[in-house]
Amino acid sequence: MTNIAFIGLGNMGGPMAENLIKAGHSLTVYDLNKDVLDAAVKAGAKSANSAISALTNANVVISMLPNGSIVKSLFTGKNGLINHLSKDVLVIDSSTIAADDARYVAQACKAKGISMIDAPVSGGTAAAQAGTLTFICGGEAEDFDKAKPILDAMGKNIFHAGASGAGQVAKICNNMLLAIHMIGSAEALNMGTRQGLDAGVLSEIMKASSGNNWSLQVYNPFPGVMPNVPSSNDYNGGFMVNLMSKDLGLAQELASKSKSPIPLGSAAGQLFEMHKYNGEGSKDFSSILKMLQE
Amino acid sequence: MTNIAFIGLGNMGGPMAENLIKAGHSLTVYDLNKDVLDAAVKAGAKSANSAISALTNANVVISMLPNGSIVKSLFTGKNGLINHLSKDVLVIDSSTIAADDARYVAQACKAKGISMIDAPVSGGTAAAQAGTLTFICGGEAEDFDKAKPILDAMGKNIFHAGASGAGQVAKICNNMLLAIHMIGSAEALNMGTRQGLDAGVLSEIMKASSGNNWSLQVYNPFPGVMPNVPSSNDYNGGFMVNLMSKDLGLAQELASKSKSPIPLGSAAGQLFEMHKYNGEGSKDFSSILKMLQE
Amino acid sequence: MTNIAFIGLGNMGGPMAENLIKAGHSLTVYDLNKDVLDAAVKAGAKSANSAISALTNANVVISMLPNGSIVKSLFTGKNGLINHLSKDVLVIDSSTIAADDARYVAQACKAKGISMIDAPVSGGTAAAQAGTLTFICGGEAEDFDKAKPILDAMGKNIFHAGASGAGQVAKICNNMLLAIHMIGSAEALNMGTRQGLDAGVLSEIMKASSGNNWSLQVYNPFPGVMPNVPSSNDYNGGFMVNLMSKDLGLAQELASKSKSPIPLGSAAGQLFEMHKYNGEGSKDFSSILKMLQE
Amino acid sequence: MTNIAFIGLGNMGGPMAENLIKAGHSLTVYDLNKDVLDAAVKAGAKSANSAISALTNANVVISMLPNGSIVKSLFTGKNGLINHLSKDVLVIDSSTIAADDARYVAQACKAKGISMIDAPVSGGTAAAQAGTLTFICGGEAEDFDKAKPILDAMGKNIFHAGASGAGQVAKICNNMLLAIHMIGSAEALNMGTRQGLDAGVLSEIMKASSGNNWSLQVYNPFPGVMPNVPSSNDYNGGFMVNLMSKDLGLAQELASKSKSPIPLGSAAGQLFEMHKYNGEGSKDFSSILKMLQE
Repeated sequence: MTNIAFIGLGNMGGPMAENLIKAGHSLTVYDLNKDVLDAAVKAGAKSANSAISALTNANVVISMLPNGSIVKSLFTGKNGLINHLSKDVLVIDSSTIAADDARYVAQACKAKGISMIDAPVSGGTAAAQAGTLTFICGGEAEDFDKAKPILDAMGKNIFHAGASGAGQVAKICNNMLLAIHMIGSAEALNMGTRQGLDAGVLSEIMKASSGNNWSLQVYNPFPGVMPNVPSSNDYNGGFMVNLMSKDLGLAQELASKSKSPIPLGSAAGQLFEMHKYNGEGSKDFSSILKMLQE
Repeated sequence: MTNIAFIGLGNMGGPMAENLIKAGHSLTVYDLNKDVLDAAVKAGAKSANSAISALTNANVVISMLPNGSIVKSLFTGKNGLINHLSKDVLVIDSSTIAADDARYVAQACKAKGISMIDAPVSGGTAAAQAGTLTFICGGEAEDFDKAKPILDAMGKNIFHAGASGAGQVAKICNNMLLAIHMIGSAEALNMGTRQGLDAGVLSEIMKASSGNNWSLQVYNPFPGVMPNVPSSNDYNGGFMVNLMSKDLGLAQELASKSKSPIPLGSAAGQLFEMHKYNGEGSKDFSSILKMLQE
Repeated sequence: MTNIAFIGLGNMGGPMAENLIKAGHSLTVYDLNKDVLDAAVKAGAKSANSAISALTNANVVISMLPNGSIVKSLFTGKNGLINHLSKDVLVIDSSTIAADDARYVAQACKAKGISMIDAPVSGGTAAAQAGTLTFICGGEAEDFDKAKPILDAMGKNIFHAGASGAGQVAKICNNMLLAIHMIGSAEALNMGTRQGLDAGVLSEIMKASSGNNWSLQVYNPFPGVMPNVPSSNDYNGGFMVNLMSKDLGLAQELASKSKSPIPLGSAAGQLFEMHKYNGEGSKDFSSILKMLQE
Repeated sequence: MTNIAFIGLGNMGGPMAENLIKAGHSLTVYDLNKDVLDAAVKAGAKSANSAISALTNANVVISMLPNGSIVKSLFTGKNGLINHLSKDVLVIDSSTIAADDARYVAQACKAKGISMIDAPVSGGTAAAQAGTLTFICGGEAEDFDKAKPILDAMGKNIFHAGASGAGQVAKICNNMLLAIHMIGSAEALNMGTRQGLDAGVLSEIMKASSGNNWSLQVYNPFPGVMPNVPSSNDYNGGFMVNLMSKDLGLAQELASKSKSPIPLGSAAGQLFEMHKYNGEGSKDFSSILKMLQE
C-alpha cells in the first residue's frame, strides 16, 4: 500500500486512479472539475482542495494532464509543487507532452533533490479502464524500478525507454509510426477494393505477408472487416483525430528540434490536420480512410 | 507428377524450378540465357530451344518474367503461346506486372479456351530457394484449386485474392504498404536515436505497442539491431531499391487508373526514386534510412 | 483564307471555331452533339455528317477532344482519318493528351506522309472566346510555321516547344507547376491570415518579393483580394478541379515513364484528387484553399 | 542624419551598416567578432565595447542577428538592452526569427515604453551590398513611418505587413512560397528536359504562361539557362540550403502554432532537410534540382 497523490482525473486519469484504489493503494486526488472529484471519492479516494494539499503524506505523485504548459505550471510554476515536495517522494508524470518539457520538469525536480520519471501511456480509455495500458518510461533505472509496481496496477506492459524524456520520445515515435501505417493500410485497402477485391480477403493476405502491421491486426480501418473496432461503428469511440493530430504536432516539433527528416510523418500530420478541418476531429483516427473516398 | 513448362529462370525462377523438380515434377525449361538453362538441366530439367517447344506434353505452364511487356509478348504477341497451347493446359504467370496486363493476357487466354491465373510472389530470392514463397493468386476458383498443389512445392502461403488480376492488385497493395511502414519505421528509429534512445530498445517498445509492423518484426532497417538482415550487412542482399521502385511505379499506375488517392504511397514512390538516383538502386530497400541521415 | 475541318466543338472548341470564322477562314465542322453543330452553323460554318465527310476540300484539320483514346480512335482507329487525308493536309491536334499518345498519332500520320503537330492550349474558356489562348506546339519547324497563322486567329502566344509530343510535355509541365504554386500560394495566404495579416497586403508583399507567381498576379485564391476571379465568386467558373486533376494524372504518368521524381507535383496530384472526392470537382481549382480551412 | 546603434555585422549586417554610413548617418557598431568591427570602423563607424555602450546617443537601434534566442537575450536577457534604452529610441530588429519571439521582445519593449518594429529582409548578401533589400515590417504605423527613411538607405522595397510580428510572418510565408515554386520549377524543368525539351525554351514557355514565377524569372535552377545565377556557377553563392532549411523550420513552427495545414510547405521542408544531409547545405537552394537527378 502506497500513499499516492493523483492530479488530473480526466477520461484517462479517472479510471487509472480507480485501478490504483482497487489495487489497495491509498489515494488523495485533485482536479479542477468537482464532478470527477466526487466520482473518485465514491470509488474510495480522499479528495483535496488543491494540488498542494493533495501532497500531504504522499510517497508518490502521479499527474495525468492535457499538455506541457499545464504540467510545467503545476510543478515548476509560481508556488509549484516542487516547492512543496519532500525529497523521498517519487513523481510520475503520465501526461503526453514534449520531451523537452518533460526534461525541463525532471531537471527542476532534480535540482530540489526530487526524483521524477516521465511515463506517458498508450492504449486509450478502454485500456485505462481495463488496467491494460502500456507505460513508456524515461528516467533513472532505480526510479523506474520504484515506479513499476505502482504502474503494474494500471497497465500490462511497462517499458523503460531510457533517460529522462525518453518515455515521451518513444511514445511519440510509436504514435507517428501508428499514424503512418494506419494511413498506409487505408490507402491499400481503398485501392484494392476499388479494383474489386474484398477488404477482408485483402487484409488477411497483407497480414500474412510483408504488409503486416498493427492497424490490420487489431484496428482495421475498413468498415465491416472487424466487428468491434471504430470503423465498424461509424468511426465512433477509439482514438480521436484531434488527439492523433496533437501527437503528430509533437512529432513534428521533436523532428524539427532534432533535425530528423520525417517525410511520411510530416505528410501524415498534414493529412490529419486537413481531416480535422473537414469536421472529423472527434471521430476515431482510422476515419482517415474517408479522406480517400468519394 | 505433372509435366510443367517453365519459362524464365532468373534469380527467382531458377530456384522455383528446382523446387518443382525436387517435388517430383517433370520440367521442361526455357530461358534466353544459356547458363541458367544448363544449371536447370543439371538440377534435373529438360531444356527446350524455344518457349513454344517447351510446351510439348506440358499440362501446366509457369512463367516468371521481368515485366508486363515481356509477358504480353510471350503469350499474346506474334506467334504467341496462346496459339500453341491446348485447352486443358493451365497457365500460371508468377511475374509481377500491372493488373491490367494480367487481365489482358487472361482474357486472351480465355478467348482461346485456356485457363490462366496470375500468381505473383512475395518473399525474395531466399524464400524462392527455401520454397517458402507467398503466392497471391487471381483467377477462377477452380483454376486456383488446380494450381495450388503445384504452388505448394514452391511456397508456404498460397492465397486466392479474387478474380483475374486480383493477385497482382493484392501484391502491389501489400508492397506499397510495406514501403510505407519501412519508411515510417526508419523515420521513427532515426528520430528516436537522435534523441538518445537505443534503437533496439525503441524497436522492442514499438513492436509491443501500436507501432508494430513487419519491418520492425523481421527486417529492422537500423544497423545492428537484428543480426541477419540487410541493414546489418551494409544493406546488401534482400530486396533491391530498384525493385521496390518498380513496384511503387505499378502502385502509382494502379492508383491513377482506379482514381484512388495514395498520399503516402505516392510520397514513398518519390522517396525511393530519389534514393535510387542517389546511387543506391542495388542496395536493399531498408537503406531508405540513409536518406534521413547525414 | 484556309479551308479548315474542325472536329470537336465543346466549351473550348466552339469558341475557337468561331474565332477562325471571324478571321475569314472557311470551316466545316463536326461534333457528336447536334446543338453545338447548329450553333457553329449559325456562326457561319458548314456542318458535316461525320468526321470523314468534314475533310472534303480541307487544307487543315483541327481537333479539340477530351482525351487521348478519342484522339487515337479518330485518327488511327478502324477507318480512322489517316486513311482519308491527302498528304498536303496539315493536322493540328489541340486536345490535351499524353505526350506518348500525341507521338503515336504523329508517327501514324507520318507513315502516311501526313504532317501533324500537337498544339494543346492554355487559358480556359474565357481566353478561347477572346481569342487569347496560348498554344504550345510540338512537331517539325516547317509544320509549326504553317500552323502559326491559323493559330494566331485563336491565340495570343504561340510557342514551338520542340519535336512531336513536346507541346503536350510543355503544357503538362506548366500545369503541374501552376498547381504547385497555386497550392503554395493558398498555404501562405491561409497561414498569414490566420496570424492576423490582411490577405491583400500579404499578397502585395509576396508579389513584390521572391514569392511572386502567376497565382498571386492574376488568380488570387483568397476570396475578396481580387474582384474578377473565381475565389471572389464562390469558386465558380475558371478551371475546374476535375480538369486540374486530369492534368496532374498526365503529369504523374509522364513522370513515371520518364523516371522523373516530382515530389511536389505528386503531392499536388493527391491533394486535388482528395479535394475532388470531397465534392469540389466542378469548382475552380483555386478552391484548394478550402482544404486548408475549417 | 540619425545616430544609430547597429548590433550584428555579419554577411548581411556588415554591408547594411555601410549603406547607412554612405547615406550620412552616424553609426556606432558592435559585434563579437573584432574583424568585422574593424572593417566597419574603416567604413566610417565608431565601434563600441559592448552592445550597451553602443547605445550612447543613439536615436535608433538596429539589430541583425542569427536567431531568436540571441535576439531575446540581447534585448530582454539579464542586463538586456531594454533596461538601458530611453523611451524615445526606436528599435528595429532585422533578424529573421519566429514571429512569437518578435512579439515577445516587442511586448517587453512596450512595457518599458520603448517602440520596436520587426523588419526582416529579403534579398541576400548581394542586395545587402547594393542597398536593394526588401524590408517587411511589423509594428505600429507611426513607428513604421519613423523607420522607413532609415530603411530606405538599405533597401528598395519597404513594406508594412501589419502589427508586431507581422513582418516575420510575411517573410516566412514568402520564403515558404519561394521554396515551393523553386522545387516545382526544378521538377518541371527536369521532367521536361528528360522528355527531350530544351530547358531554356521550356522556361520561356512557362514564364509566358500560368506557370510563371520568380524562380523562372530571375533564378532559374537549371544550369546554363541564365548566365549570372547560382545554377550556372555550380550552385555556389546565392541563398544557402542551410538558410532555406532554417526558414522552412520557422514556417513549420508557425504552421503548427496557428493550426495551418501546409502540405507542400511541409514536404518542401523535408526535402531541403534531406538535401542538406546529402552534403549540400552550403550550396545555393536552387541545387534542390540535384535531388531529382541521377
